[in-house]
Amino acid sequence: MGIVLDRPVDMHLHLRQGEMLKDVIPWSSRQFAGGVVMPNLTPPVDSGEKVDKYREEIEEALNGEAFKPLMTLFMRNYTYRELKEWRSKIFSIKLYPAGITTNSEAGVKKLEEIYPVLEIMEELKIPLSVHGETNGFVMEREREFAPIYLKLAKDFPNLPIIMEHISTIELVDLLEKAPNLYATITLHHLLFTLDDVVGGKLNPHFFCKPILKTPKDREALQNVVKSGHPKVMFGSDSAPHPLGGKLRGSAGVFSAPVILPLLTLFFRGDVATFQKFVSSNARENFKLNLPTKKVKIVEEQWQVPYIVGEVIPLLAGKILPFRIKNSK
Amino acid sequence: MGIVLDRPVDMHLHLRQGEMLKDVIPWSSRQFAGGVVMPNLTPPVDSGEKVDKYREEIEEALNGEAFKPLMTLFMRNYTYRELKEWRSKIFSIKLYPAGITTNSEAGVKKLEEIYPVLEIMEELKIPLSVHGETNGFVMEREREFAPIYLKLAKDFPNLPIIMEHISTIELVDLLEKAPNLYATITLHHLLFTLDDVVGGKLNPHFFCKPILKTPKDREALQNVVKSGHPKVMFGSDSAPHPLGGKLRGSAGVFSAPVILPLLTLFFRGDVATFQKFVSSNARENFKLNLPTKKVKIVEEQWQVPYIVGEVIPLLAGKILPFRIKNSK
Repeated sequence: MGIVLDRPVDMHLHLRQGEMLKDVIPWSSRQFAGGVVMPNLTPPVDSGEKVDKYREEIEEALNGEAFKPLMTLFMRNYTYRELKEWRSKIFSIKLYPAGITTNSEAGVKKLEEIYPVLEIMEELKIPLSVHGETNGFVMEREREFAPIYLKLAKDFPNLPIIMEHISTIELVDLLEKAPNLYATITLHHLLFTLDDVVGGKLNPHFFCKPILKTPKDREALQNVVKSGHPKVMFGSDSAPHPLGGKLRGSAGVFSAPVILPLLTLFFRGDVATFQKFVSSNARENFKLNLPTKKVKIVEEQWQVPYIVGEVIPLLAGKILPFRIKNSK
Repeated sequence: MGIVLDRPVDMHLHLRQGEMLKDVIPWSSRQFAGGVVMPNLTPPVDSGEKVDKYREEIEEALNGEAFKPLMTLFMRNYTYRELKEWRSKIFSIKLYPAGITTNSEAGVKKLEEIYPVLEIMEELKIPLSVHGETNGFVMEREREFAPIYLKLAKDFPNLPIIMEHISTIELVDLLEKAPNLYATITLHHLLFTLDDVVGGKLNPHFFCKPILKTPKDREALQNVVKSGHPKVMFGSDSAPHPLGGKLRGSAGVFSAPVILPLLTLFFRGDVATFQKFVSSNARENFKLNLPTKKVKIVEEQWQVPYIVGEVIPLLAGKILPFRIKNSK
């Protein structure tokens, strides 16, 4: 008995470096055949050389486990020659639109500075991954970004644009408004709301950006995921921070250890949709080449670790009814 | 030069007990001629004897400073005889409607259990202080409580009802809908929003209940305060917690040290409205008998303390342009 998933893939993942990378990567590599690895290191991953070096560090930390790191570049003004040369090393380029104002017109103006790169990406078929938030009020930042997504999608109709970690009903609705807009959805935005951050006691382990939203937003995410929408893909945005950093206010949820056990609960036996959300949609949309790998989840009580290295996982210490059955 | 306020009063204050009381009370007693002292101790203040004992502890901690503690009782099913006997000892009875559901009809039903006490209070002219929130989504709890306030006000038209620490535009609007509805507004709800809690790094020192709301809600509070609305009174809800408690998620902002310096900034020289908000409105609405006391605020740089006993104040370490000038 149990569920078997074919080549699950995490389309948005922070693996960090050094000791933390070694601590956290087994939790992803046991559950997934691959993952899109975000480039926000210090300094950011913004060259083919840095991609190679980071991928090698990840592969070493994998210790032989079959897991394909799908590498990304941090947005800057890349030349055609650079991207042409590095195309085969990367999956996408990640844009964090820092300094985007609440005014969406000004936001687009700012974005126009990178239009030359977007043209090159469109030609080379390099997807654009976007953290879509303005600098507005925390609950509205993502909603305010919707017109910017739409303008980008219309201005570059052949550029695949991945709206990362969408958290609002407005961005769910955008999926129907442009064929080249895709979305990733995290575990925590799918299952939780702002109530889990500030509704009872203040809980830093649910604090992330985009902030967890309203029950209505969560319902919209749940509905689109349950519908098996082909442009919606799982991306955990699992973002480990040492406990000390969390206590000083760092944003990020380390969800990696609990992903497939909690999604099993969420899908309640609808394995076909589960498979689409965590694997087939992404593989079909982006022709991903992942190692052959099946992951089995069994109904067996399992306690989430209290701490992984220096990082407190989501639902630390809780007993879950499902666990990963490691294939030997 | 400077501003002189006549008998400022804090209509909602948590003074705690023991060492913490001694640590925090000077910050209130230097700035105010009196304050409404909340009864949520463990165990709660729910008898005349407990009121006497708590008032004595407060008076001892005051160390001779002229400050009148306006005592309150924690709601329970008091008899007519009890309240008649204790009337002169207390200012109001505080209701924390724990267990009120998101459904306002059910909420009122639950409230009907205390209707006998409310009848007695109405007869004895004892104001009702209410923490008005349902158990709904954190950003909507107070708005959902609005119909409950309205029903209470209609069912007991001669009972003064103080909507404590209002934080939403909906509750501002209620002030016009029933003559016996009053409101207190805190410093932090007047000046800050949810952005200060979760908009940047997570900041536990801005975390409180009701949670800080949206810019639109804050604007409504600012407008009604600037209008000098006679039913709107300052109540800090200054709620000290030891740092250890804050790091474990306790809700409460310790604003006492910065109240009048920040309100001076807010009122920008409109001393008449400032005086109404922090004193005259409350004194006229409730015929308060406060010690003769004038408090002077001068334009002089002042650094907010980093810690008061074990408590981190609001804006700890910040330099403010105004300070209290202690009268001799």
